[in-house]
Amino acid sequence: MEENRKIIKGNIAFTPRFGKLEVRENSFIVIEGKQVKGIYCELPAEYKNISVTDYQDALIIPGLVDLHFHAPQFANRGLGFDLELLPWLEGYTFPEEAKFINAAYAQEVYKKVVTELWKWGTTRVVLFGTIHKEATAKLMELLAQAGLGGYVGKVNMDRNSPDILIETTEQSLTATEDYIKDTVDRYQLVKPILTPRFVPTCTPELMAGIAKLAKKYNLPVQSHLSENAGEIAWVKELHPECQNYASVYHKFGLFGQQPTIMAHCVYNDDTEIELMAKSKVYVAHCPYSNNNLASGIAPVRKYIDNGIIVGLGTDVAGGHEVSMAKVMAMAVQVSKLKWLATDKKEKFFTIPEVFYMATKGGGSFFGKVGSFEDGYEFDALVIDDSCLEVSAYNRYSIEERLSRFLYIGDYKNIVARYIAGAKIEQPQF
Amino acid sequence: MEENRKIIKGNIAFTPRFGKLEVRENSFIVIEGKQVKGIYCELPAEYKNISVTDYQDALIIPGLVDLHFHAPQFANRGLGFDLELLPWLEGYTFPEEAKFINAAYAQEVYKKVVTELWKWGTTRVVLFGTIHKEATAKLMELLAQAGLGGYVGKVNMDRNSPDILIETTEQSLTATEDYIKDTVDRYQLVKPILTPRFVPTCTPELMAGIAKLAKKYNLPVQSHLSENAGEIAWVKELHPECQNYASVYHKFGLFGQQPTIMAHCVYNDDTEIELMAKSKVYVAHCPYSNNNLASGIAPVRKYIDNGIIVGLGTDVAGGHEVSMAKVMAMAVQVSKLKWLATDKKEKFFTIPEVFYMATKGGGSFFGKVGSFEDGYEFDALVIDDSCLEVSAYNRYSIEERLSRFLYIGDYKNIVARYIAGAKIEQPQF
Repeated sequence: MEENRKIIKGNIAFTPRFGKLEVRENSFIVIEGKQVKGIYCELPAEYKNISVTDYQDALIIPGLVDLHFHAPQFANRGLGFDLELLPWLEGYTFPEEAKFINAAYAQEVYKKVVTELWKWGTTRVVLFGTIHKEATAKLMELLAQAGLGGYVGKVNMDRNSPDILIETTEQSLTATEDYIKDTVDRYQLVKPILTPRFVPTCTPELMAGIAKLAKKYNLPVQSHLSENAGEIAWVKELHPECQNYASVYHKFGLFGQQPTIMAHCVYNDDTEIELMAKSKVYVAHCPYSNNNLASGIAPVRKYIDNGIIVGLGTDVAGGHEVSMAKVMAMAVQVSKLKWLATDKKEKFFTIPEVFYMATKGGGSFFGKVGSFEDGYEFDALVIDDSCLEVSAYNRYSIEERLSRFLYIGDYKNIVARYIAGAKIEQPQF
Repeated sequence: MEENRKIIKGNIAFTPRFGKLEVRENSFIVIEGKQVKGIYCELPAEYKNISVTDYQDALIIPGLVDLHFHAPQFANRGLGFDLELLPWLEGYTFPEEAKFINAAYAQEVYKKVVTELWKWGTTRVVLFGTIHKEATAKLMELLAQAGLGGYVGKVNMDRNSPDILIETTEQSLTATEDYIKDTVDRYQLVKPILTPRFVPTCTPELMAGIAKLAKKYNLPVQSHLSENAGEIAWVKELHPECQNYASVYHKFGLFGQQPTIMAHCVYNDDTEIELMAKSKVYVAHCPYSNNNLASGIAPVRKYIDNGIIVGLGTDVAGGHEVSMAKVMAMAVQVSKLKWLATDKKEKFFTIPEVFYMATKGGGSFFGKVGSFEDGYEFDALVIDDSCLEVSAYNRYSIEERLSRFLYIGDYKNIVARYIAGAKIEQPQF
């Protein structure tokens, strides 16, 4: 039993509830196997024989969860931001994704993606791949090899897509089922996820088929919803029979019938919000991307007030930052602009609120992940923020140190990473 | 003559006009003394004897100009962003600035400020100090010692300020004149600037006295204008006799009678905009700060269209980033939200537009600075962006490489810095 236990010590901070930062200074976390077994100021007698990894004055926080990241767009970060969503897809995204038919290129890029996720402290991630099942299976393999947790989706698209990046409905469904069979039992922390790109690129037959696969293999679903006015108008044109964008997914079994993440959700109306809440659909809020593509500011406070679970996403490469810390800071920043734009009705977010979204909020998509409560899988980052100190004359609280790390720290401050109880070293690809 | 000349070679990019990126691949810049003497694809015969520093495939861009930075707030970066401007000043800013009566503390912090500016490639900067003339003179000394260019202001505040941070009108003016006399001829690239904090903390007598000093010593002026609704209402209350906020400064001789920078300008009305244009007042646009303090998005496109010169500022510590590259990216991002908020009337900014603001736009406050046209002082950064490459399979244009550096690069990409013709190494404090 004892070899299965570990104890680490430091200044522990996590959010058991939305907006509530729990701080336990100079305390011990006991981990048994994958799970947290308790936090103590003084170690109980039964644990006295177990050696303690003492991180001294460092912060220990839950690992960060990125609910939306397009792995094949990694090389496009920082490019093409003079465009909105639809022309950006045509001009930059699709040509880059088409390259992933080339397995060597895919492997080269995906190694860098996984290394970068590791570097910035993302411990669980939900990834889009491309339509190519081999490249996407390779991405899963690399993620698992690095010890990170994640869902990885082979993308489906059988209409309104360029010739270089389109499948027939049958090809798309067959390849997806092959991909699932090949990967579903292969790794412990990395699993496939159904990934219809978005309504405009998926025929009704394809959407219905994907929903069937999700049910058959009991797998989750991810897609995009209401990112941009042009996109919404296009969906309306394609599906005049549906009341709104969300109900298209719902009609075809892709809106909470299995656990579902919808990225963006910038422009959902009240009917959709009700459906999202009822269907327990997760929102992946991606503020960097929504700025870069001139999409707008999602009404996240409204979602939260309506009981919808919101996690955060980088949306690489609509977003250019891999760092979930920076995404948290940006989520606070745009919420302040939203607060002004709503005549101060939609209250802006605090650090403990966005921290919850990036840990326990998004983490709950993976089960008991994102918190240090008993029974949670132990995903953690150890933060040495001493180089952020300007003068020994200044003293900061743990809350303030967390805020400073999120706003002005970077990967160099992350000195250890744990996922599901195991310490994870830099991937050696 | 020849020892006074140097030649450097690389991929040169700069903005001779707003929005126009000029690219000269694999070219030579000839520098004579402080100044650019020409850019050539092939070196003319007369320069053949001068040795060339060949930066090979690197980018060579103008040094970056930060028009607004509160040096004493450096240790406050990333703190207190649950507050708006006025309570944030009370709760965080003023207590921190009060510490600068302590010369040792000031020196410790200011060394880090100057090092950080160097690190992120800021070659010219306009700094607020505190009310303390010794600490502020020390800041100038450190900046000059590092070889950076700048204006540094001893702050004036004689009303509505906490006891720990207030002067009498007479004290304020005497100390300011002492500070000017002490520093005005001391350094070549670093000069004093008159720095009334903002209308609420300066009596009419103080403002008038500062204007007199500016005229007497022929020095520029900096202050804050229309950052936040609460602040504007307060100014209205203090000066019911004035039509608007800008006209208060104008009435007391602090609005373009000498070269003037006004930070923020989030809420100026058309009358003020006319006055700003007529008075040739510079706007220091500080998007990070305006997000963090929930101030809003400045109508920068409108300013530009009205012929107002706009530079960019970090506004540390309202802004948490020292990097002007990140400020450029953020200026683009918030301009997209402004574009949406104005029904697509105020066009969002492109990279060449914000790049101009952060180089030649802000640089013009210093004279012929911020461009590589003949006769401009040679301020430059050499950017090795090779580590940003994901795969040799991808080829980027110089424009795209610049965009990627601004969005996803950092200080590690800056491999050499030049200011006024001299290569500047890391400060050894």
